Amino acid sequence: MTASFSAIDHALMARALRLAEQGAYTTKPNPMVGCVLAHGEEVVGEGWHQRAGEPHAEVLALRAAGDRARGATAYVTLEPCAHTGRTGPCSEALIEAGVGRVIAAMRDPFPQVDGAGFARLQAAGIEVASGLMEAQARTLNRGFLSRIERGRPWLRVKLATSLDGRSALASGESKWISGPASRLDVQRWRARCGAIVTGAGTVLADDPELTVRLGDDTPFVAPLRVVLDPGLATIARGRVRGGEAPTLYLHAPDAKLPRGFAAEHAAVPVREGLMDLEAVLKLLAARGVNEIQLEAGATLAGAFLAGGWVDEVLLYMAPVLLGERARPLFDGLGIEAMADKRKLELVDVRQLGGDMRVLLRPKP
Amino acid sequence: MTASFSAIDHALMARALRLAEQGAYTTKPNPMVGCVLAHGEEVVGEGWHQRAGEPHAEVLALRAAGDRARGATAYVTLEPCAHTGRTGPCSEALIEAGVGRVIAAMRDPFPQVDGAGFARLQAAGIEVASGLMEAQARTLNRGFLSRIERGRPWLRVKLATSLDGRSALASGESKWISGPASRLDVQRWRARCGAIVTGAGTVLADDPELTVRLGDDTPFVAPLRVVLDPGLATIARGRVRGGEAPTLYLHAPDAKLPRGFAAEHAAVPVREGLMDLEAVLKLLAARGVNEIQLEAGATLAGAFLAGGWVDEVLLYMAPVLLGERARPLFDGLGIEAMADKRKLELVDVRQLGGDMRVLLRPKP
Repeated sequence: MTASFSAIDHALMARALRLAEQGAYTTKPNPMVGCVLAHGEEVVGEGWHQRAGEPHAEVLALRAAGDRARGATAYVTLEPCAHTGRTGPCSEALIEAGVGRVIAAMRDPFPQVDGAGFARLQAAGIEVASGLMEAQARTLNRGFLSRIERGRPWLRVKLATSLDGRSALASGESKWISGPASRLDVQRWRARCGAIVTGAGTVLADDPELTVRLGDDTPFVAPLRVVLDPGLATIARGRVRGGEAPTLYLHAPDAKLPRGFAAEHAAVPVREGLMDLEAVLKLLAARGVNEIQLEAGATLAGAFLAGGWVDEVLLYMAPVLLGERARPLFDGLGIEAMADKRKLELVDVRQLGGDMRVLLRPKP
Repeated sequence: MTASFSAIDHALMARALRLAEQGAYTTKPNPMVGCVLAHGEEVVGEGWHQRAGEPHAEVLALRAAGDRARGATAYVTLEPCAHTGRTGPCSEALIEAGVGRVIAAMRDPFPQVDGAGFARLQAAGIEVASGLMEAQARTLNRGFLSRIERGRPWLRVKLATSLDGRSALASGESKWISGPASRLDVQRWRARCGAIVTGAGTVLADDPELTVRLGDDTPFVAPLRVVLDPGLATIARGRVRGGEAPTLYLHAPDAKLPRGFAAEHAAVPVREGLMDLEAVLKLLAARGVNEIQLEAGATLAGAFLAGGWVDEVLLYMAPVLLGERARPLFDGLGIEAMADKRKLELVDVRQLGGDMRVLLRPKP
């Protein structure tokens, strides 16, 4: 199914990818998918998956195209599904509409699809090609793919730091290191994810609400708020219990649940005083969380990093100095020699108001 | 002498500024100056000051223009000089060549000029205007202007840091935090300055040579290497004594000079165990240093910053983590509350190889 693709193919797949991304805040736990139907370079229909339970991208594009779908090429950012879930199989709809060719960015690793969509199309005599702009498609759905392929969510650590790498003063004070443009940007990254994870220490020190506040009426599915609180020390307090979003407390197996405790909770093994982070990630993947945004202090951020669980670091760096007594960015990395330094790769650097925003991925 | 300037005026002054900057590595201690002679938008001659003792920009532009200088407009990035130094006064040369108009970016605050050049031109009946792109001209010559107007060099602190704001490991190991593109870029900034200043601690820990190594045959005037070494603990060692550049040791008044000590040296007052940094800066200004690049550890960098002597921070940030036990970027800032944080302003952010380079100026 490898094939050579034309410039028009690339342009229309890029368009499908942009359409797909419009679902970033709403499709979870489903992947983002975009579809463009075209005759040559003439687009006759397009669509993107908006919400789980609602029509898939292909169905919306076919509806828009009507009779003009016949003989068209369908550009889809993910293999069309072959199974009947909450909606009928898209591969069937494409066959019925009489499309001439299907070009996909990538195969869908979801066990109920995983090549079956392509097979069904080919069995109906439709030409199928896959792999066009696959890297971009994988980046787009890195959360979904991580959950399906690795059994754990994609983990992004969000940090606000000073120029001298400090996340808080020695007193714990950390509010307003970064400026308003950075703080709004954080909301957009929150809106993408399935869960915002924090620790008991952050609840006690900063008392964040951890809800999504975009400042306009852009629709989003509220991420689950997850508090890692081995001893359930914070359940009687914290703005994290308020606002329009669910909250899940993860605690040690021997933690005492107070009488009448109404919030959702689950026990996670604790090893050497530290919550088993792998178990936390598996639990959240099982709940359909594709992307996690970790918004915690240096201890928890350092533990996730030291464990090798961090996929992405989102760093808001304010042009201020907090001095040598302030708190570090990550704690517990245990670096003694230059050869032990942790290497990351710059993915994106930009200015946001007076701050810098740096996106990085740890190097293996 | 304020005037309104045309688009052609702006374009030709921008050209003169670019010409001036070609002298960045060689004109010191003189200012960088560029000159463009034009009839309308037609350039008839241009020049830039290359080295102290060699012809000024105006003279080179007049030579290039020949007879076509008559009636031309002269665009100069700094007021033409009125005094006979190692070369004759440029204002006189412009008058003799019969230029019709002189547009300067700014007045030259140098005491022997300071308006006298303009006055001389006007007395000869030449139309004079000043202030076109003055901000750019001031930025270009910020070193020279600092020395003349404030009596101290412009001080740039160069630092290489990890993402988590660490300049060295706890062991002192600091080499190769940043990559090859950053290290070459540092050489260009060194070539601009009149002095590279370091401390005894850095000589002992890193043993830098502090020479300019541009990797090609671009000409430059070697900056003076200055070691702040109150007790002269490092004079018997260090690559800073080798290479093709002068070295100056600054020490406490009571330091014991070893028999036969041949290097240049000077005493500077010491207060409460710390070298008087204001005295250091005055001494270097008196020697004609326009720009200092400070390449030192957290203690000395922190002392200059805490004293308010830092004009510019040049930060090379490598995408690595060195951990919470590593050394801070600046020591001794004494910040206890968020209100005490030191604010800087981003001037320029760019990617250099795998690193980021950030140029900042402290906010008043």
